[in-house]
Amino acid sequence: MEKHTFIPFSQVKITDGFWKMRQELNADTTIYAVKKRFEETGRFSAYQGHWREGMPHKPYFLLTGDIEKWMESVAYLLKNGKCKELEAVCDEVIDLIERNQFPDGYFNMWLMQTDPTRRWTNRDWHELYAIGHLIEAAVAYYEATGKDKLLRCACKAADHVEKVFVEEKSCAFFTPGHEEIELALVKLYHCTGNEKYLALSRHFINERGMHGEERIPADYGRFVSQNGRYDQTHAPVREQDTAEGHAVRALYLYSGMADLAREDEDQGLLKACQKIFDNIMNCRMYISGGVGSTYRGEAFTIDYDLPNLTAYTESCAAIALMLFARRMLLVDPDSKYADVIEKVLYNGFLSSTSLKGDAFFYENPLEIDPKQTGKEKFAVESARMPIMERAKVFYTSCCPPNITRTMASIGDYLYTCSADTLYIHQFMNSDAVIPMEKGDVKVRQCTDYPLTGDIRIAVEGDVKVAVRIPGWCEKWSLTVDGKPAVYTMNRGYAVLENIQGEICLQLDMAPYAVEANPYVQDDAGRIAICRGPVVYCLEGVDNGFNLRDIHVNMDQGIEVGGTDFCGIPVLEAKGWQRDEQAFGNSLYRRMKDNRKDISLHFVPYFAFANRGVTEMVIWVMP
Amino acid sequence: MEKHTFIPFSQVKITDGFWKMRQELNADTTIYAVKKRFEETGRFSAYQGHWREGMPHKPYFLLTGDIEKWMESVAYLLKNGKCKELEAVCDEVIDLIERNQFPDGYFNMWLMQTDPTRRWTNRDWHELYAIGHLIEAAVAYYEATGKDKLLRCACKAADHVEKVFVEEKSCAFFTPGHEEIELALVKLYHCTGNEKYLALSRHFINERGMHGEERIPADYGRFVSQNGRYDQTHAPVREQDTAEGHAVRALYLYSGMADLAREDEDQGLLKACQKIFDNIMNCRMYISGGVGSTYRGEAFTIDYDLPNLTAYTESCAAIALMLFARRMLLVDPDSKYADVIEKVLYNGFLSSTSLKGDAFFYENPLEIDPKQTGKEKFAVESARMPIMERAKVFYTSCCPPNITRTMASIGDYLYTCSADTLYIHQFMNSDAVIPMEKGDVKVRQCTDYPLTGDIRIAVEGDVKVAVRIPGWCEKWSLTVDGKPAVYTMNRGYAVLENIQGEICLQLDMAPYAVEANPYVQDDAGRIAICRGPVVYCLEGVDNGFNLRDIHVNMDQGIEVGGTDFCGIPVLEAKGWQRDEQAFGNSLYRRMKDNRKDISLHFVPYFAFANRGVTEMVIWVMP
Repeated sequence: MEKHTFIPFSQVKITDGFWKMRQELNADTTIYAVKKRFEETGRFSAYQGHWREGMPHKPYFLLTGDIEKWMESVAYLLKNGKCKELEAVCDEVIDLIERNQFPDGYFNMWLMQTDPTRRWTNRDWHELYAIGHLIEAAVAYYEATGKDKLLRCACKAADHVEKVFVEEKSCAFFTPGHEEIELALVKLYHCTGNEKYLALSRHFINERGMHGEERIPADYGRFVSQNGRYDQTHAPVREQDTAEGHAVRALYLYSGMADLAREDEDQGLLKACQKIFDNIMNCRMYISGGVGSTYRGEAFTIDYDLPNLTAYTESCAAIALMLFARRMLLVDPDSKYADVIEKVLYNGFLSSTSLKGDAFFYENPLEIDPKQTGKEKFAVESARMPIMERAKVFYTSCCPPNITRTMASIGDYLYTCSADTLYIHQFMNSDAVIPMEKGDVKVRQCTDYPLTGDIRIAVEGDVKVAVRIPGWCEKWSLTVDGKPAVYTMNRGYAVLENIQGEICLQLDMAPYAVEANPYVQDDAGRIAICRGPVVYCLEGVDNGFNLRDIHVNMDQGIEVGGTDFCGIPVLEAKGWQRDEQAFGNSLYRRMKDNRKDISLHFVPYFAFANRGVTEMVIWVMP
Repeated sequence: MEKHTFIPFSQVKITDGFWKMRQELNADTTIYAVKKRFEETGRFSAYQGHWREGMPHKPYFLLTGDIEKWMESVAYLLKNGKCKELEAVCDEVIDLIERNQFPDGYFNMWLMQTDPTRRWTNRDWHELYAIGHLIEAAVAYYEATGKDKLLRCACKAADHVEKVFVEEKSCAFFTPGHEEIELALVKLYHCTGNEKYLALSRHFINERGMHGEERIPADYGRFVSQNGRYDQTHAPVREQDTAEGHAVRALYLYSGMADLAREDEDQGLLKACQKIFDNIMNCRMYISGGVGSTYRGEAFTIDYDLPNLTAYTESCAAIALMLFARRMLLVDPDSKYADVIEKVLYNGFLSSTSLKGDAFFYENPLEIDPKQTGKEKFAVESARMPIMERAKVFYTSCCPPNITRTMASIGDYLYTCSADTLYIHQFMNSDAVIPMEKGDVKVRQCTDYPLTGDIRIAVEGDVKVAVRIPGWCEKWSLTVDGKPAVYTMNRGYAVLENIQGEICLQLDMAPYAVEANPYVQDDAGRIAICRGPVVYCLEGVDNGFNLRDIHVNMDQGIEVGGTDFCGIPVLEAKGWQRDEQAFGNSLYRRMKDNRKDISLHFVPYFAFANRGVTEMVIWVMP
């Protein structure tokens, strides 16, 4: 197993450009917007611990873990030297957590205040999920501030979990109904060096699928469990080879499996992770990098089932796919993982947040037809359409703090290294210092990618450099101080040795059309317009009505227009659609040549739905 | 109001050709197939009236009216001189009906044997629907055999209904939850001459929508009633202008409204019927003539919402649309009604029955992708796909006997007449004698339509003849004894006077492509191949996989092939699809020219799914 080292964002400073702007929006606006919503919905006050029946803002299991994810975000922002005043807010919450945690270590802000006697009785109540996020927040906060109060609470909670699930086996179930703690425990092990936390993660991963379906609570019966597929208990993890069930649960599990594969050099886990990742990438992922084709169970369905109008593609699932892919880079260095991360970063992840940074998609639509929403009016169970505009708050609000923590730690995705090679996975204007066997290596990226495709890379240190050549790119050049570079290709990376001077990677950024595999029924006869890693879409506000009826004249070319959206250009093209007027009232008629020439204005997909409710399509006709 | 006279099938003998073959299949096979299933499922034995708890084949409201519809079919067959031996079977059932009917006239084979005390307490129990079918069967059987026993039972039941709903108003609701009795009572009025039955029909139609939603039973709560739209109680009938809710209920109501508009010369009802019909024809009807876009509530949804893969399009709804259209021809003579009847006849109605005549679709798919059915496995509530092959029996079996009665009385759709004009609406090889003011008129059609477009019409009698020029036809000629005919066009009919010789209508039967209004999202960029009134489809068994990815080379023309399907030719064309092999594992890739030339074999839509489970599409790409 080729093991690589993870380079955390703390060693990578995003200095300028697209991602710097997004990170500043996150630090200046988004983190406060989420805080405000959480205050308004009683998420913070819940930590006072004195909620009683009849009081507003009843805690609920679907709300646990959100504050912890928000605090984890703050920790990353503090590490970046931002949002200093939020440290006091976290300290307050942490004091409350310490004060309210049960003496035996149990911690759950919902059950502790409603019915502690029912703890560990229902596999779907997210108790382990919430402790997982407590752990992630604790590790992050300790590493950002050096304060260990929350870390001690987290260890105490983890010790309690170890006691009741491993020693006593006194719980009504054996493994988490909603995965998350598996990957969190690996972080806790790295932070504390305590092997028992790694062992506990290993325990949960190995036990999964060994006890049948365990228990499916009645209130989850409406999601047919499919012999446990809904929460990945359908088979022992090493026998799983397709992405199944609830997408976020699945991807948090796969991330934990990848972590453990690395820690234990476990070939069985590695193979399972490889098969599952390939299944997602080759059969179950939208062009946006979003996953989860149906809202029923927020789940993966079957290969090539990628309906656009009813796509679910939860923001948390997009983030979780990046978490999984990033871990795969550490055990199976291949550019396909970084390609998927880039696809998600510029599309399915960015789309989750409004351009103003204060509103969010829980589900990310792949197509919007406001007329169709009328269908829902007929019957509760009729085809379910996603919301058409981002909301400032949800009842279940797992996504917003997941977005803030991801944006604050975006530097996690740029680099990994082997003993002698620095891998460059993502291209962002940045400075990094990377400790390697032969000493620190300094690497600076100067680029306004993806506005242009020019990436200049300066490396100081005795090291080989592996530069990812994006899968979307067909024409590119690599030079060192202006001279053609000498390199060898290795699994999607151009590997350079004895570098004397500045590496310059130039990627062809001409807009291009993408087609989907013919097995994808929904995209048959259609193409998506892209530029670099960015997927584009048409919106009604720019292009009128019946966007699904629009053809693009590819032979007339696609022009790069102004940079309306945070430095990403719009695209202009010529096209045509049929003239509705010519149909009068008729529903069907003999095919006639009835072309209405139109100018098409494409905007980046991530920027859709920022100008009111309007039609949107990604897949147009050539 | 231009009132026309209805010419029943009893005056029209189908003598040869396509419909003769289908009628013989109905008489020789289908009527017996349905009888066999009804015997096997205890539908007949239920009429013994001694079912008790614990015995098999518990009667249920969803099964009421089926035997009556089967007997109505037998009556029509007897009238055609067929199935003599089934008369004895009917007489037996009729004796049981007379014996079991309550002294006060109440009749319902389900409640009478389960809990008579609950009669008239639940609007959704189909009690009035079942009595409606009892009435239709009684009238048909009396007219076919002269036997009036069942007719007396029907009158007695109708009298009871009049007593409890009009005089006593003693029921828990005011109007039928499932319409049908409205149109049946008009038939009973014509058969008996008793005005009170017409008044009762008028009562139900006028009361509808005047009592709010009336009562929606809990067990129907899953179909959101939409303020009564589900069963057309959302507004007084004269204020309704769109087709709403459960398609069969709606269309039986509209048929009754059209009947009453004619009887009462009620302009308010006529206008409502016209608006509703236009809404269906222009916004809510599949190219097959099927209606009902969702299985949730088996219902109409919103304008232009015509998804193919999840279409519901119940066979009974297609038949009910013909019933409505036929009645509109009597109050608003326009070829659009006959055009819709023809569309349904050759597509959505014929598709309901297997070519062998012994299996049926309850829902008629507009597209089949066997892979997609896997989606259902994920969650009970996930996208619901229709069955892919016709079944020999259903639990709810309203469709099979509806099909047999319609096929046996197909002659109902050929002619209507005004005082001085004979209207020819449909083209079938036939002899008819039509009583008109100036005496009987004999009309003979000699044609092998739709194999060819030549229709020769011989008329004896002093009458004007209005020949429908089908809306699908762009090129046609009309001659009398070989000389160009003199005619005037009137609302889609070529009207000829002083006819001296044989009228010959020649319709251009060249295959053609149809496009849907751009507002129909599902058909954007797609066309349907048709010939005459027949819609064609591609099946996987002939054309491989990923049929949605297939393009037809229209410029190479579409050839008429052999006549595989009951005298209807198949169509051959050239086309292309993308080569899946070229994609390898990739889900997305840059658009490349990747055409695989293929030969396309189109079969009539009505003949699909007769050769095993296989893909099917109507809408292909040009």
